[in-house]
This record gives sequence, structure tokens and C-alpha cells, in this order.
Amino acid sequence: MAQDKVRLASVGLGRWARVLARGIQRGDQVEIYSCFSRDEAKRTKFQEEYGVPNAASSYEELLADEAVEGVIVTTPNDTHKDVIIQALRAGKAVYTDKPIAHTLEDANAIAAAVEETGQVFAVGHSSRRLSGHREMKRWIDDGRIGDISLAEANFSNERGLELTPNTWRWYADKSPGGAFIQLGVHHADTLQFLLGPVKSVTAHMRKLYTKAEVPDAIMAILEFESGPLAYIGTGWASPGVYSMNLLGTKANLQYDLDFTHWDESHQADDWSSLKSQFYGEAERQPVELPRTDMFREQLEEFGLACRGQAQVEVGATEAVRALGVVRAAIESSKRNGESVLLQEVIEKTGTGE
Amino acid sequence: MAQDKVRLASVGLGRWARVLARGIQRGDQVEIYSCFSRDEAKRTKFQEEYGVPNAASSYEELLADEAVEGVIVTTPNDTHKDVIIQALRAGKAVYTDKPIAHTLEDANAIAAAVEETGQVFAVGHSSRRLSGHREMKRWIDDGRIGDISLAEANFSNERGLELTPNTWRWYADKSPGGAFIQLGVHHADTLQFLLGPVKSVTAHMRKLYTKAEVPDAIMAILEFESGPLAYIGTGWASPGVYSMNLLGTKANLQYDLDFTHWDESHQADDWSSLKSQFYGEAERQPVELPRTDMFREQLEEFGLACRGQAQVEVGATEAVRALGVVRAAIESSKRNGESVLLQEVIEKTGTGE
Repeated sequence: MAQDKVRLASVGLGRWARVLARGIQRGDQVEIYSCFSRDEAKRTKFQEEYGVPNAASSYEELLADEAVEGVIVTTPNDTHKDVIIQALRAGKAVYTDKPIAHTLEDANAIAAAVEETGQVFAVGHSSRRLSGHREMKRWIDDGRIGDISLAEANFSNERGLELTPNTWRWYADKSPGGAFIQLGVHHADTLQFLLGPVKSVTAHMRKLYTKAEVPDAIMAILEFESGPLAYIGTGWASPGVYSMNLLGTKANLQYDLDFTHWDESHQADDWSSLKSQFYGEAERQPVELPRTDMFREQLEEFGLACRGQAQVEVGATEAVRALGVVRAAIESSKRNGESVLLQEVIEKTGTGE
Repeated sequence: MAQDKVRLASVGLGRWARVLARGIQRGDQVEIYSCFSRDEAKRTKFQEEYGVPNAASSYEELLADEAVEGVIVTTPNDTHKDVIIQALRAGKAVYTDKPIAHTLEDANAIAAAVEETGQVFAVGHSSRRLSGHREMKRWIDDGRIGDISLAEANFSNERGLELTPNTWRWYADKSPGGAFIQLGVHHADTLQFLLGPVKSVTAHMRKLYTKAEVPDAIMAILEFESGPLAYIGTGWASPGVYSMNLLGTKANLQYDLDFTHWDESHQADDWSSLKSQFYGEAERQPVELPRTDMFREQLEEFGLACRGQAQVEVGATEAVRALGVVRAAIESSKRNGESVLLQEVIEKTGTGE
């Protein structure tokens, strides 16, 4: 059946390409058929480790291979625009890791190219696929939680204490917003998946303990068009936290995940807990969660979409809105916390969705 | 030994006076010796329920009683100034429930009267005395938690859904900031107890589901002079939440308390949990907490201070700074989230501490 799998090609063969490759190997719908990195040794190693039959000696060669149906991009954020647009124009579907880009100018250019080429385009905002968030959405949709007034999320780890000038995440021009664009952007997408579009963002960003150029302590308040307020906290100077609490008129939901198991996403649910709290309950009650596998799921969805057999859930529109929260937060922090309208920073959305 | 107890008098005999009376009855250092409410039936009932030997038929009569060493004020926030200053000028020590007042003008007038009269003055910012917060302070002081980048706190309950025009908390002029001045002010004090003085406040306040005049969804970001950022969320439209998380360079601490047991503060520790998380720990570890009794403790401290045998921990200075956070949040929300300096809203602190 191997010839029936959707043939994808990986570009940028670092740690994250490996995480995604393992996600693909857990399923049987798609395969990594080819790969490219400028470093030949890296290509060979990646081929060996993940049984990838082909490697291209240039990006152009990879894109010229008619057997390749879609490209998986895990290069640094500030290279996304060129790498993605080149693939789209070569007639390839593209999956890129989040964020869609490091600036809205790049993101809007990508969105315009998606529209222009009509290619399938997916962004790896995987966290909304975690079982706990899917369950939260069900509680919102069927009314069990009532009307939400406050949502609170945190995504933090120690990365800022370990950064060196050798990594692109060290630099403000490549990774603007630091922990917020790398970690907070997940919640920026998931909260909009749960509560609808963000209207405005207020934020403060501080560089406290990292030696890198970027902030390691960020707090943002999001106002939603539907009414509720949400908070996103992201730090890069502490043991790992991944949490989201929703406070509703009928119940509260509290979600916690042990981030150390994030990479092996088929096990992530085993290290997470969702608890509900209704009025008069002294103890929060555990909510049973079906098992999911966010990386496998999003790449299979992308692969099937390459053949017109699935719809991409997170495309340019959603990804621009998630990045918009990050850029609005950066702008608000510069303006001493003043609220910044998402529409103001996005300027034009121009997506092909 | 009854004649050795410090003789206090309760003014304003509502629900909160009862909670404090029960706190006093759990100890043997102070007693409620007299009481006053304009409603005679209320006075009689309070005397019977808590074995109070005397009742005054006017506030002047109560203050003229030389046996009374200190006054416990639990009247509505907007009456604090007159009730407290009258007692101070009559030569009485004063304990008042938090917040010190509803406006900084009133709070500063109280602080000036404390300085002028030299009387003992205490404010019931009890939550900093909870065993979990005391333990957090020890972890900060002895360096176990490392340097803190983010602190996150929430204090919410369903009160906003139950308010009626018959209660003063319904009205914006009596209870400005709604849930934030009633609940959030506790965290505003406790966070300053833990992290030192707040420099500035950014906030958004929304009236979402309550019918009252005041906001029921409030989020604030506090910047501390020492560097860290803190978040306070308060809602009045959900099941109860009381929590605080600290993220440090060496460890995280997570504190949770079941607010339904708040009033019986000698049991509050039984319904709370403090958990620590060091690097590489998959599960958060419970931290053992000594038992405390915040209401009893603060009133015994006040009573002994009346006789010069103890120091008041929370006086006008601390209470003005906690209220300052609330007023700065209200101002910031009016200014579309723009950061407001605490010093700007306090104008003059003029406390007698």
C-alpha cells in the first residue's frame, strides 16, 4: 500500500522536522518521500533515521520533483515567506510550522500567494487539537459551561535561560516577542478557536533573566469580539507550564498538560488533565478525555487535503489572526500597555481561505 | 481571666461582623465587649449569638465607653472614612475590613487621621496570612524558588449574578471596580507582600453578565518595582476560584483554595493545596502547610497591639497601596488599558506608619 500514501517532502531538517516525522510514522496515510537541507550530512542522517527514500541537493530540485505532493516547512520563522511562496508557485501544497511568519508583512504576502496559486496551505497550530481543548469546545458549543467571562492561559518553559547567540531565537529581528511568538502564539490560536475573533490586545513584555535579545516575561490581555476577556502568560525562565482555565456562568474548566511530553503527541493526553467545577462542588471533577495525536492528525489532514479528500482546519486566515495577536501585543507593549486593535495591525488579511 | 482579654467593640453587625466574631471566639486573647448597629433588633441578636455583654444605642455612646480598647469596623466601604476617623479621634484603636475605603481620597484622609492621632490602625487584608502565601514568602526569602518572572492570581465567585439593588455592592459609586475592589484587592495586597511595591497597573474591566452597575470581569497586569509581572483575574459570574501561581527560575509554586470554606478560616488550610514543581518533575509535589487561622490571627494581633504588645502587620501604608492597585486599574481601564503609575493615583500616601 506504500504507493498509496501521500508523498510529502520535508524542508529544514532540525529538531522539529524529526518530531513531525515521528508523527507521520505513527500513521499510514502520508509518508516523507523526500527532504532537503543545505547540509548534505543532515539530509543523509534524516533519510536514515526516518527511512526517507529521496533527498534533493537543492530546494529547486525538490520542488521540481513531480512526485512530491506537499512540502513540510520547519525552517526558521524569518525564512518562511520565501520558502513557502517558492513552493506554492512551484505548484506544491504547503504545511508550515507555526507561526506562519515573524511579521505580518510576510504573513500577508504568504496569504496573498495562497490566494493567487489556489494551493492547499496549512499551519501547524497543533495545540487546538489537544484533547482537552477539543473537549472545552464541546462544553462551549453544547452550553455546559454557560457564558464565559474569563479565560486564562499560560505556556512557559526554561528556554530563555538556555539560548545562545548560535540560535535564531536569540535575536529580536528573527524572533520578535521572544517567548510570546514561540509559545504564546499557540494559545492565541486556541483561544480564538474557542472564543472567536480577538478584537484588541493589551500587553507588557519584559526581558528579565535571559541573556538573549528577546523578552522572557510576557503578559497579554485579549478582548474578544464576543465579549469575554482572556489572559495569556508566557515566560522563558521557569520549569514548564501549559495550562488553560475557562470561567463560565455554569461551570469552570481547568486544563493542565505536562509539556515535557509534548513532542510525542500521541502520549500528550496521558500527561494532561481536564477538570470541571460546578457550583457547590468542593473538589474539581476529572473529565475523561479521548486520546488524540495532534501532530499525526494535522499532517494526515494536510496530506489528504493535498488530494482534495480533507479540509485544512488552520489555514492562512487563522494563522494571520494568531500572529496578529503577537504583533498587537508587541505594539501594545511599546505603547505602554495601550490596547491595540487586531484589525489595525493586520491591515489587510488578504487570505486565500 | 475574662477581665484580661482585650475589649473590642463591633460596628456594623452584618455577615462579616459574624465571621470575625467567630474568629475571635476561637481564641482567648480578645473579646467582643460591646457592639453597635442603628438597628436595635440587630444589636440584640448579635449580643445573643456571640455572648456580647454590652450594646450601645449610638455610635457616640460606644466610643464614649472607656472600657472599649479598639473598634472593629465592618460597615460598607463608602462609610469607612467617617466611622474610622470618628473612632480614632475618640481615642480608640481601629481595625477595619478591607478595602481601607472605596476611594483614595477617603483612604488618604484615614491615613492622615491615623498619623495625627497616633492610634493603632489595622486593615483586614487577611489573605496574605493564608498558610500557602506564608509558605510562598519563605520560598522567596530563602531562594528556593529563584527569581520570579510571572505571578498569576485569580479570585472569582458567582456574587455578581446574585446582586440586587438592595445591596450597596450593586452601585458603582459605593463599590467601584465591582469584583476587583471586593475580591481582587486581596491579591493586590498579597502580591505586594510577596513581591514588594507595585509600580504600574494595566487593566480592562467589563460588565458582561451581572445586572448590577459594576464590572463582573476584570483582568489586570501589575508591574513591580522589583521587575516581575503579575496578573490578577477577578470574575463575579462563575463558580468560585482562589488561586495563585508563581513562576521562578528554580521552581514554580501553585496554590489553590476552595473559597467555600473561607469564612471558617481555621479550616481554610484543609481545603487548600500548595504544589511545587522543579525542573524535570513530571508531577507537581504537594508542599506541607502548617495550619493557620487568618481571621483569629489578625484580630488577636490587633488586640495585642491596642495594648502595645504586638505590631500591626497591615496598616494604612499597605492598605493604601492595595487600594491604589484597584484605583489604578479603574483608571487604566478608562484609558483603554494604558499603564497607570501607582504613585500617580495615590498622589500622597501620608500614612501614619
